[in-house]
Amino acid sequence: MIKIGVDAVGGDLFPEAQIKGALLALEEDSGIEITLFGPEETVRPHIENLSHYASGHLKYVHSPQIVGMDESASSAVKTKPHSSITIGLSQQKEGKSDAFVSAGNTGALLAASMLILGKLEGVSRPTIGAVYPTLSGFRLLVDAGANLELRPDHYIQFARMGVIYTREMMGIEKPKVGLLNVGEEAEKGTEDMREAYKALSASNFFVGNIEGRDIFPAKADVFLCDGLIGNLLLKFGESIPDAIAVMIVKKMKEKQMSAEAQQEFISLLKESLQAFNYEHVGGVPFLGVNGVSMVGHGGSSALAMKNMILNAAKYVRLDLNKKIVDSLQKS
Amino acid sequence: MIKIGVDAVGGDLFPEAQIKGALLALEEDSGIEITLFGPEETVRPHIENLSHYASGHLKYVHSPQIVGMDESASSAVKTKPHSSITIGLSQQKEGKSDAFVSAGNTGALLAASMLILGKLEGVSRPTIGAVYPTLSGFRLLVDAGANLELRPDHYIQFARMGVIYTREMMGIEKPKVGLLNVGEEAEKGTEDMREAYKALSASNFFVGNIEGRDIFPAKADVFLCDGLIGNLLLKFGESIPDAIAVMIVKKMKEKQMSAEAQQEFISLLKESLQAFNYEHVGGVPFLGVNGVSMVGHGGSSALAMKNMILNAAKYVRLDLNKKIVDSLQKS
Repeated sequence: MIKIGVDAVGGDLFPEAQIKGALLALEEDSGIEITLFGPEETVRPHIENLSHYASGHLKYVHSPQIVGMDESASSAVKTKPHSSITIGLSQQKEGKSDAFVSAGNTGALLAASMLILGKLEGVSRPTIGAVYPTLSGFRLLVDAGANLELRPDHYIQFARMGVIYTREMMGIEKPKVGLLNVGEEAEKGTEDMREAYKALSASNFFVGNIEGRDIFPAKADVFLCDGLIGNLLLKFGESIPDAIAVMIVKKMKEKQMSAEAQQEFISLLKESLQAFNYEHVGGVPFLGVNGVSMVGHGGSSALAMKNMILNAAKYVRLDLNKKIVDSLQKS
Repeated sequence: MIKIGVDAVGGDLFPEAQIKGALLALEEDSGIEITLFGPEETVRPHIENLSHYASGHLKYVHSPQIVGMDESASSAVKTKPHSSITIGLSQQKEGKSDAFVSAGNTGALLAASMLILGKLEGVSRPTIGAVYPTLSGFRLLVDAGANLELRPDHYIQFARMGVIYTREMMGIEKPKVGLLNVGEEAEKGTEDMREAYKALSASNFFVGNIEGRDIFPAKADVFLCDGLIGNLLLKFGESIPDAIAVMIVKKMKEKQMSAEAQQEFISLLKESLQAFNYEHVGGVPFLGVNGVSMVGHGGSSALAMKNMILNAAKYVRLDLNKKIVDSLQKS
């Protein structure tokens, strides 16, 4: 049995989406057990009458403190030792579970994961990847905000971890890594980037520098960058569908199109932009921590939670962390 | 008379778009004279029979060397002393013209502008701004690729120059500056960014940190960032309309929509995404050089060239560089 801890009080829609997501995951994967972490009074009433609870496949652990979505990471970790995040990760550290997933405060989850789980052997810094929509489906953007300034060896480790994640978890056979830069030439970018470029050139997965225009056509499978760039691109990217919809609605009103025609176009647009829908992605991992810790979008629905839980189980079954340690050792 | 130098051999569509653009500008603004820079054999046949040439409003200066779009900036400046860019800027330096515009190699134009025109009094580093589409029209992204790493004082100078440009040239009454960052809190970002945040907080135009999702809603009028971020966002942004069109066409084919319905929606989409059309922008300036040097998109059409020439004339008439020097002195 793979044991997954789930933050019942992280995200914008807790606890309903979290608990519903856990139930959906249990229906789909009979090889997992789930423990929900959250205040007893918030969690227990939702689950005590369920058959999964009676059978022991769904449990909860009382975790009285809730970390707010906008709380500073360091203060949350320091001042809330009894939060769902801290207790959930500590249980994993003690061997009581195999993974922990949350749709809560990303910064707090990362800080707590580093503190409680520590780093994998050979990892200088853990990183956070984010799936990014392209014309060929989702690809991985790394670092997505955990490390704002990178040394050359960080780029290289993030590239290797990204290759393993995209290959094993995202099913991309021979993942290519591209370094996000202002131009394709080797001499572009900062000194650290030029050094990283040189070191990466020895690997068989590196396709060189790529530019902003190369993201949508998926010129690489792993978009390598520092966390400042990654975070800005991530949040900018998420804002695209709404912005496009606003522009189109405005134009349709100007042209006085009929309500039906407007409705038709808008629903076509929504279907077309499914590439931006994160619900099916199943969260993103902290790569390089000595354990399994995944985070989902704050607005995660039950479906998104289900997929994140199943993804965490997949991560455990694949023994991905061992593959990361092996890859870093070989390099 | 305001004298504008035009690079006749810069951009993807030279010399036709460049010469046609010059003629359109002369039709629209009787207060300007234009000198085209390029090889005599390329330019002369196009203009020798024109009335503007006969009247002396349109001239050319033989500049035998052409800087390629992908040529490295430093090598272009060193090895091509007789390029349209070098000769055009040198004539401005000698007082024979007031401004120089080009749709050519941005890096080479910036390097040559710095070398030949030098810096404005009080400017640590010149910067390049880029207009960026938002739901409220164009705003300014600065730095767009000239300076990949910024010290705190660079952020502050770029902010001040950006405020003057957006107010005087783009007609935004009280421009607000936002620092692109991973979160809104003052302690977010790198050490240099935190220092810049602190210093900018004393100004009346600073709205604090903004995130990737704040760009389209134009939470600021000047998006302040280093050139690595700016360049990536700029090129990524330019790729959005095509990517969206590809997604929509794919979906329409899947749904087997009629050819007419497909056509209708695609033309609606194109009209809706006019916000991304750079033709009307009229190029972007190098802010902080001791002269007027503007660059346009490589694919600039005649219309785009016309608007850039008129914009350069506006820049000269407004005496914008004096306003920049005054603003930096006061700070």
